[in-house]
Amino acid sequence: MITSTSNTQVKNIIQLQKTTKARKKQGLFVVEGWKMCREMPKEWLQSVYASEEFLENMSEQTRREYEERGILNRVAEHVFLHMSQTKTPQGILAVGRQPVYTLEEIAGGRDAPLIIALEDLQDPGNVGTILRTAEAAGAAGILLSRQSADLFNPKTVRATMGAVYRLPFLYVECLTESVQELKRRGYTVYAAKMDGRPYDEKDYTKKTVFLIGNEGNGLTAQMQKEADEAVCIPMEGKTESLNASVAAGILMYEAARQRRRK
Amino acid sequence: MITSTSNTQVKNIIQLQKTTKARKKQGLFVVEGWKMCREMPKEWLQSVYASEEFLENMSEQTRREYEERGILNRVAEHVFLHMSQTKTPQGILAVGRQPVYTLEEIAGGRDAPLIIALEDLQDPGNVGTILRTAEAAGAAGILLSRQSADLFNPKTVRATMGAVYRLPFLYVECLTESVQELKRRGYTVYAAKMDGRPYDEKDYTKKTVFLIGNEGNGLTAQMQKEADEAVCIPMEGKTESLNASVAAGILMYEAARQRRRK
Repeated sequence: MITSTSNTQVKNIIQLQKTTKARKKQGLFVVEGWKMCREMPKEWLQSVYASEEFLENMSEQTRREYEERGILNRVAEHVFLHMSQTKTPQGILAVGRQPVYTLEEIAGGRDAPLIIALEDLQDPGNVGTILRTAEAAGAAGILLSRQSADLFNPKTVRATMGAVYRLPFLYVECLTESVQELKRRGYTVYAAKMDGRPYDEKDYTKKTVFLIGNEGNGLTAQMQKEADEAVCIPMEGKTESLNASVAAGILMYEAARQRRRK
Repeated sequence: MITSTSNTQVKNIIQLQKTTKARKKQGLFVVEGWKMCREMPKEWLQSVYASEEFLENMSEQTRREYEERGILNRVAEHVFLHMSQTKTPQGILAVGRQPVYTLEEIAGGRDAPLIIALEDLQDPGNVGTILRTAEAAGAAGILLSRQSADLFNPKTVRATMGAVYRLPFLYVECLTESVQELKRRGYTVYAAKMDGRPYDEKDYTKKTVFLIGNEGNGLTAQMQKEADEAVCIPMEGKTESLNASVAAGILMYEAARQRRRK
């Protein structure tokens, strides 16, 4: 049992929760709570840390499964509280290996895939919520510029509500290049912009890419140039913009609506 | 100039930022940053607190306007940092009087008003984002059950991006009673529910109310009974639900889309 907060593993888990750098270097991430631990794909799961109290209530079967794989670590109550980043820790967390997807896995589907490309989104909650909505709307996956918020930030992972385990995503060095590649593959690229045509006038039943820009600045000029069409979400009143995850949700669900009716 | 962090006004502003109770008791709220201060309706504005540094860069006209009304308070830099709840304070905050709206102001419009009713929403960010989206979608206003998050929580006010100054809203003791009143006024009430009909099969061009439930538990059974129709947002994959503000956005924008095409 781990009884000291200065244990090396404990220190490393805190690092993995706190910094993107540690997560990238090790290719790992941390999830908290029973639901997120249980849903993690087996191939990703590296280790589990559970408090004594949590272990008492864990099913015999699960505990045996973890023990047989040699990945279960018992942790003293006060040490778990020290490791946890949540307000009301459940007493269990897991370390997982970050998956690596290819553009082909996202864009190669035959059934007119719907893809969301995020340029420099900064809010971890937005990135997580967009992944969650994308899965529900039937999107094939998400592309993210390298400067976007880290999907494995604990707050982002939580906001995905498990979609991070199921929907492919890809951080790319140069998002314009990836978008060009999608155009070569027959995708039509739509940029969400204030001065575009109303979004519901376009047909999204073919291969579709939606470009979503940074919360404060929108899409860069370079990225706007890559778009085949500019579309806007009409706004009444004096609102200057919509929240990025709401805007992405409205666009993705317009595509889903059209595809259901096809 | 206020130079002490134990100044009574300073202490009160911290209370107003931190607790719903203080805000309700005094009928006041606090906003931070130049944009939110400048946009606040004049009739609401009670007092302004600005750091010395901020004052140096404030336009002569604005300063004179505030001084003539006797509402400008100069604050030493370290005191402002102490009062502020934001990570990177701009050096200005304002205290405003909470507006009081009536159901008539929200529901009395002639042009088939669209109303959103929130039952026990807990996340301050969601409530703020829904208000922001509602203004953009052309909704007439928002009803909130008394147990919903406080719209004047600093995080919520920020998330509204100024819509809090423009869109009417009303906290009600008993949301079912208010919904019954709306039905008597000729509104059709739609509940967002997993087992409803797809949301895009209904007509929202008449007087419309959307009921949005608590993030974890959805709508109460009592509230579901009040609905004329249950509608769902179809979901693919294994997602169990959408984020409440995304779901509300998709419904409101389907109504807006239909109304533009009418």
